[in-house]
Amino acid sequence: MRIAVCLTDNKPAPWVEGLQRLLPRATVAAWEPGAPPADHAVVWAPPQAFLDAQPQLRGLFNIGAGVDALLKLRLPPDALVVRLDDAGMSVQMAEFVCHAVIRHFRELDAYGQDSAQGRWGFRRPRSRSDFPVGVMGLGVLGQRVARSLGAFEFPVRGWSRTRRELPGMECFAGAEQFDAFLAGTRVLVNLLPLTPETENILDRETLGRLLPGGYLVNVARGAHLVEEDLLALLDAGHLAGAALDVFRTEPLPSDHPFWRHPKITVTPHTSARTLRDESVAQIARKIEALERGESIAGVVDRVRGY
Amino acid sequence: MRIAVCLTDNKPAPWVEGLQRLLPRATVAAWEPGAPPADHAVVWAPPQAFLDAQPQLRGLFNIGAGVDALLKLRLPPDALVVRLDDAGMSVQMAEFVCHAVIRHFRELDAYGQDSAQGRWGFRRPRSRSDFPVGVMGLGVLGQRVARSLGAFEFPVRGWSRTRRELPGMECFAGAEQFDAFLAGTRVLVNLLPLTPETENILDRETLGRLLPGGYLVNVARGAHLVEEDLLALLDAGHLAGAALDVFRTEPLPSDHPFWRHPKITVTPHTSARTLRDESVAQIARKIEALERGESIAGVVDRVRGY
Repeated sequence: MRIAVCLTDNKPAPWVEGLQRLLPRATVAAWEPGAPPADHAVVWAPPQAFLDAQPQLRGLFNIGAGVDALLKLRLPPDALVVRLDDAGMSVQMAEFVCHAVIRHFRELDAYGQDSAQGRWGFRRPRSRSDFPVGVMGLGVLGQRVARSLGAFEFPVRGWSRTRRELPGMECFAGAEQFDAFLAGTRVLVNLLPLTPETENILDRETLGRLLPGGYLVNVARGAHLVEEDLLALLDAGHLAGAALDVFRTEPLPSDHPFWRHPKITVTPHTSARTLRDESVAQIARKIEALERGESIAGVVDRVRGY
Repeated sequence: MRIAVCLTDNKPAPWVEGLQRLLPRATVAAWEPGAPPADHAVVWAPPQAFLDAQPQLRGLFNIGAGVDALLKLRLPPDALVVRLDDAGMSVQMAEFVCHAVIRHFRELDAYGQDSAQGRWGFRRPRSRSDFPVGVMGLGVLGQRVARSLGAFEFPVRGWSRTRRELPGMECFAGAEQFDAFLAGTRVLVNLLPLTPETENILDRETLGRLLPGGYLVNVARGAHLVEEDLLALLDAGHLAGAALDVFRTEPLPSDHPFWRHPKITVTPHTSARTLRDESVAQIARKIEALERGESIAGVVDRVRGY
């Protein structure tokens, strides 16, 4: 069995070594043009030439949770496209989102500004019942984030394409319940997969339906957000702020208005990073399962897009 | 039944009205010198003259979780001293501490500095197994904080005077296990009651035993901390930083070195604020229970000090 590793922007060597150690009978190698076709591939943003050279690929493992970029390429027709499921990402996402929501709810930026000026400030405590949080996307990451927010007693609402029933939160589903979901949401957390249906979903209409003083946390994909619409709603005062970790162009261009907007917190796509050891172990287990003819979690529906 | 409200730095009127509404047969009034003795009192930092005028007091309700200041006064001998238990404080404490720990662990201040300069930075993810968190004080607040940190998969350790066995964490107890607790702790969260035994407990010796790169979160009382010792250990590089919400003198004096220290985050005693509606309801329920001869939670052991 041959396993090819083909990673843009990541060093392949530790992935090759880790997989080789866990799968000693396989031949694991970083891909180079002219290499023999592989049975399984571990990829991040691979070139089209790599995919075209894999006619017999059975498993195509993406080392991230989102496969939107991969699905835009021409893929070997019979390969299962597999995303990481969790592998240490959901806890990172939960802590990142909870940090952002608490920071906003508890006005910790304003306290920080006071403190920088040596000022012992006082702010009236806000009521968490005034800060219902709506989580868009209720997959592995979204469910974990929603559960964590619920543990801090925020009223939590969830929205997904397909109906889910999750304990401790009000769940909404599909286009017909989207407006009702938004109308009761003040803090909107986006964890949707990026598909043609969800691209640009965070536009003036969506964000404008949030409760006054709304706050956006985007930790999914930059292409979900219509940037001008966010800026307009912030400047009009309908939205109170946004924490953005993902952008249409990454790295975010140095002249982009998000960098210096006083109501926007920018982080460099760091909310949930791929952890190599966990990911190598998960992919090795899945390759073994596929070779035994078993089914595995995290297989992407190419038509649905996630 | 007479109920006196005697609050320094707080307007008594809403407390009087709230208690009167819930206890319509009682006579509730803000205390003034010369008023008749009360059966129960709701206090914050009351003057000694108030306490001396209450020979028949049965319940003395402190509208905070810490009673250290109250116990320094001469109290009516037969009154039960009662602190708030929870009343919306533990969730605030959990979110405040989790925010501080995540902010430190995920290097969000450094990302913020990058962002302020328009820099798309990259930092290698840290392993949470390298950030064991130790919680000192395992009462209502400490247990809630420890549980919340555990949900983010930090290794959590707890220390208390009396042994506790709590799920999902390693528990240490008493002076004889204090060093072992500290030696495996990198992030130290202080939630101890302030008593003669715990005053100055956060000194050079205690903080010096933490794992290298230690971080202190003090949300209990300023008098737990020997300020010069913290500064010395920060400047020596043994400690990486501190988030301080409480101080020996509050408001923190404007010339205090904590304000502008680059490794210290100062907040103005805001980690867990008394929420009036929840507190009024809790105190009213407890007064009714005492009047029926029932026992109540939150009664302070005057000798132990909490």
